[in-house]
Amino acid sequence: MAKQEDIFKNVISHAKEYGFIFPSSEIYDGLSAVYDYAQNGVELKKNIRDYWWKSMVQMHENIVGLDSSILMHPTTWKASGHVDAFNDPLIDNKDSKKRYRADVLIEDYAEKLNIKALKEIEKARVRFGDAFDEAEFVATNTRVIAYKDKERAILERLATSLEKEDLEDVKALIEELEIACPETGSRNWTEVRQFNLMFGTKLGASADTAMDLYLRPETAQGIFVNFLNVQKTGRMKIPFGIAQTGKAFRNEIVARQFIFRMREFEQMEMQFFVRPGEEMKHYEFWKETRLKWHLSLGLGKENYRFHDHEKLAHYANAAADIEFNFPFGFKELEGIHSRTDFDLKAHEKFSGKKLQYFDTELNKNYVPYVVETSVGLDRMFLAVFATSLKEETLEDGSTRTVLRLPSVLAPTKAAVLPLVKKDGLPEIAHKIIEDLKWDFSVAYDEKDAVGRRYRRQDALGTPFCITVDHQTIEDQTVTIRHRDTMKQDRVKITDLNALIQNEVAVKNWLLKME
Amino acid sequence: MAKQEDIFKNVISHAKEYGFIFPSSEIYDGLSAVYDYAQNGVELKKNIRDYWWKSMVQMHENIVGLDSSILMHPTTWKASGHVDAFNDPLIDNKDSKKRYRADVLIEDYAEKLNIKALKEIEKARVRFGDAFDEAEFVATNTRVIAYKDKERAILERLATSLEKEDLEDVKALIEELEIACPETGSRNWTEVRQFNLMFGTKLGASADTAMDLYLRPETAQGIFVNFLNVQKTGRMKIPFGIAQTGKAFRNEIVARQFIFRMREFEQMEMQFFVRPGEEMKHYEFWKETRLKWHLSLGLGKENYRFHDHEKLAHYANAAADIEFNFPFGFKELEGIHSRTDFDLKAHEKFSGKKLQYFDTELNKNYVPYVVETSVGLDRMFLAVFATSLKEETLEDGSTRTVLRLPSVLAPTKAAVLPLVKKDGLPEIAHKIIEDLKWDFSVAYDEKDAVGRRYRRQDALGTPFCITVDHQTIEDQTVTIRHRDTMKQDRVKITDLNALIQNEVAVKNWLLKME
Repeated sequence: MAKQEDIFKNVISHAKEYGFIFPSSEIYDGLSAVYDYAQNGVELKKNIRDYWWKSMVQMHENIVGLDSSILMHPTTWKASGHVDAFNDPLIDNKDSKKRYRADVLIEDYAEKLNIKALKEIEKARVRFGDAFDEAEFVATNTRVIAYKDKERAILERLATSLEKEDLEDVKALIEELEIACPETGSRNWTEVRQFNLMFGTKLGASADTAMDLYLRPETAQGIFVNFLNVQKTGRMKIPFGIAQTGKAFRNEIVARQFIFRMREFEQMEMQFFVRPGEEMKHYEFWKETRLKWHLSLGLGKENYRFHDHEKLAHYANAAADIEFNFPFGFKELEGIHSRTDFDLKAHEKFSGKKLQYFDTELNKNYVPYVVETSVGLDRMFLAVFATSLKEETLEDGSTRTVLRLPSVLAPTKAAVLPLVKKDGLPEIAHKIIEDLKWDFSVAYDEKDAVGRRYRRQDALGTPFCITVDHQTIEDQTVTIRHRDTMKQDRVKITDLNALIQNEVAVKNWLLKME
Repeated sequence: MAKQEDIFKNVISHAKEYGFIFPSSEIYDGLSAVYDYAQNGVELKKNIRDYWWKSMVQMHENIVGLDSSILMHPTTWKASGHVDAFNDPLIDNKDSKKRYRADVLIEDYAEKLNIKALKEIEKARVRFGDAFDEAEFVATNTRVIAYKDKERAILERLATSLEKEDLEDVKALIEELEIACPETGSRNWTEVRQFNLMFGTKLGASADTAMDLYLRPETAQGIFVNFLNVQKTGRMKIPFGIAQTGKAFRNEIVARQFIFRMREFEQMEMQFFVRPGEEMKHYEFWKETRLKWHLSLGLGKENYRFHDHEKLAHYANAAADIEFNFPFGFKELEGIHSRTDFDLKAHEKFSGKKLQYFDTELNKNYVPYVVETSVGLDRMFLAVFATSLKEETLEDGSTRTVLRLPSVLAPTKAAVLPLVKKDGLPEIAHKIIEDLKWDFSVAYDEKDAVGRRYRRQDALGTPFCITVDHQTIEDQTVTIRHRDTMKQDRVKITDLNALIQNEVAVKNWLLKME
């Protein structure tokens, strides 16, 4: 447990120190749960986005892109259900004036019971050593059983109350458990009430004519309202998909875990429009295809798993998450949802416009069914970054920090290092950069001893270091050092481009999906 | 005048019909001055953004990227001056309850005088025919002189009043000119008052703890607040630049001219940090370099001009626009501003943090000066799109609509067309796409006669059509048709990739800057 926390802290500080992620507006002491992508982060994020776009749009004849606006007509969010149902249950403490998510207070209480059980187990593990059988212990130890039973009972009651929107019972549960304000210990609570997670704003200046708008809480609806325009002007035939990347906003009350849950975040979504009745075939196809895409990056098959939803959202008839093993455990990275015709039908109803497709093969009109694939770009960034960050012990006993990013995603593909800052070596290094920079991003690095520069580039995730030395002047060769193996080869300057491109080309990485 | 309007209407309808730009939330009758980029528009926009990014970031050793958030700490906008000074003067009509920009009401009145003068000139041109000398007529015709003098007097008084923030005089001018509500004719006006153009929103749920935020009205401040973090973690040495693309928002009261002035728009900005006193050298360099970048796209040198600002914003000591010849005349496309140390000093003052750079060569600390280059991505899109759209009369007297997009920016690089939908030709076409799609975007098109398909691809701006016919089966050759010349060549399938890449590669286009 502690070790995971340490790893996560290390991820956050490395991201700051090496120019990947800064807290937003840090000179003003930051803005909670909002982050900026720094000089290396912006490139890594861009490379992930491009890798997704190429794989989803460019590689599929029947998928096209879209870039819809963040501000949309407000009726969109009535139709989608967000105005009425996109809420968190909040509670205020009357003494401390602090506000909390009621469900999180209860979940935290339940988690404490779980931790107590885990501590009992851990104590017994130490006491019994090799003779310890965890399953047997858990089944027979009355204290552990009591903690676990109570935890389960609380979470079940909470789930039931939330599902029935019985906020009085949520309040009752808080009182029964004697949950107190974490900051002051006061148990003087208000009622629980629903708080909408959408950020609101106003369009126009006059009180009479101003229109209440929302910052979109998801990108999907931008695709649905444009469905027919795209289908008609693009002459698309079902099945076909519309893909989009873009920002969305949620006014989270409890936003935490670094860039995992932010108030401003970016989604990469594709909505695939299919014949009603054929959705399960496509759903299975996209589950498999999206997992292959993730696996192509080589972060390790063991870090992914499917989680099929048992409880389905009101719009879905099948749903699964691709979960990733983050530093804080397995959590949702991507969702694949069979959304039925819920959204299109809702927009038909609220707009009064038909959103139907005429299927020439079946010779009939229908509202298509939709299968959605939706990745959080920031989560994807965190998955790649955290998994790539390694502390390694080398043969000589020293350690190095290396960011083993998939080279296709690395912000800088190669750094060019003159061995010394004289004898014309910097000039040759710059000349090499002039040639390579047309095809991929290259950095120059001349400060400190070359060994330290290698370590710095390792920590930045740069797959290749090219070192210019005195032999270069004589025979136009350089050494190329591989980040992961630290192996160095002597190669001709003229071979560098092809050698590096072969390793970093999107094509060669996407081929691993096949 | 009428002709320009027709051209512009044609641009807007072509953008809709061919899947480049849709009104946002169109099924809900749209959201004023907000647009969505459709399946072809998103690719054109992405290609412009990538062309800029590659040229500014990847090609410069001393420029790095950034992706800062839309939501920032609100003190940012106090420091930048936006809270106090980013206003439009508004006036309400008490009878109609309609709200207007007071300056626009007055400008529209002045424009009517101008139109009256133009009509006199036009009438005389018809009357006198070849004998007409416009300059002499304008100088001697008393009615024309009166109109022009009155127009000038009104605009000068408006400018003076706005500069002195004398809103009472703006109101007085409206009353003196007897300007009425355009919708109802009522002259029953309120006072003029300032309205802030930033969209507001609230972070957090509780009335006590909620924080008033703004959607950023420009991306530049995200760069300034991160200046020291980037400089330190990236070990940047002055002069260096930070580049960023991203959304910004302005609650425009009068938003018009299609995507030229939108409420939600995207900027491509680079802030270049330099030694105080050396800013004019860099300012001149970037003026020249940015114009070269525009010219590399081949839209015609005559469509660009510099406009040096005589009146400077409070933060600038030199400023110029690169203006482009839009369908509605020459207007700002890009701004190059020498912003001095205004922004960094303001953030030092408001944050209490030092934002200084230690210059090892000069052995001293200072707040750098800043030279900014700022393009509107949507304006750039409009410039490229509108200029590329041509109605051409062909040799046989027929006409074609062709979108002569620079091929590096074209959404689809090639369309593959089976001559007929049988004899295995579609299968060969798909096989060609399978091979080409790894390297650039390719479309398949089998509907209608091949001539109509050529026309459709012309209208979409696709630079190449590859036609698969019966000869292809025998000798593995296809015809390749060039959009601009309509010339067709017979080439081997295996030569297609290199041939097309040579025409569309970013590198070959950027080389035109040299």
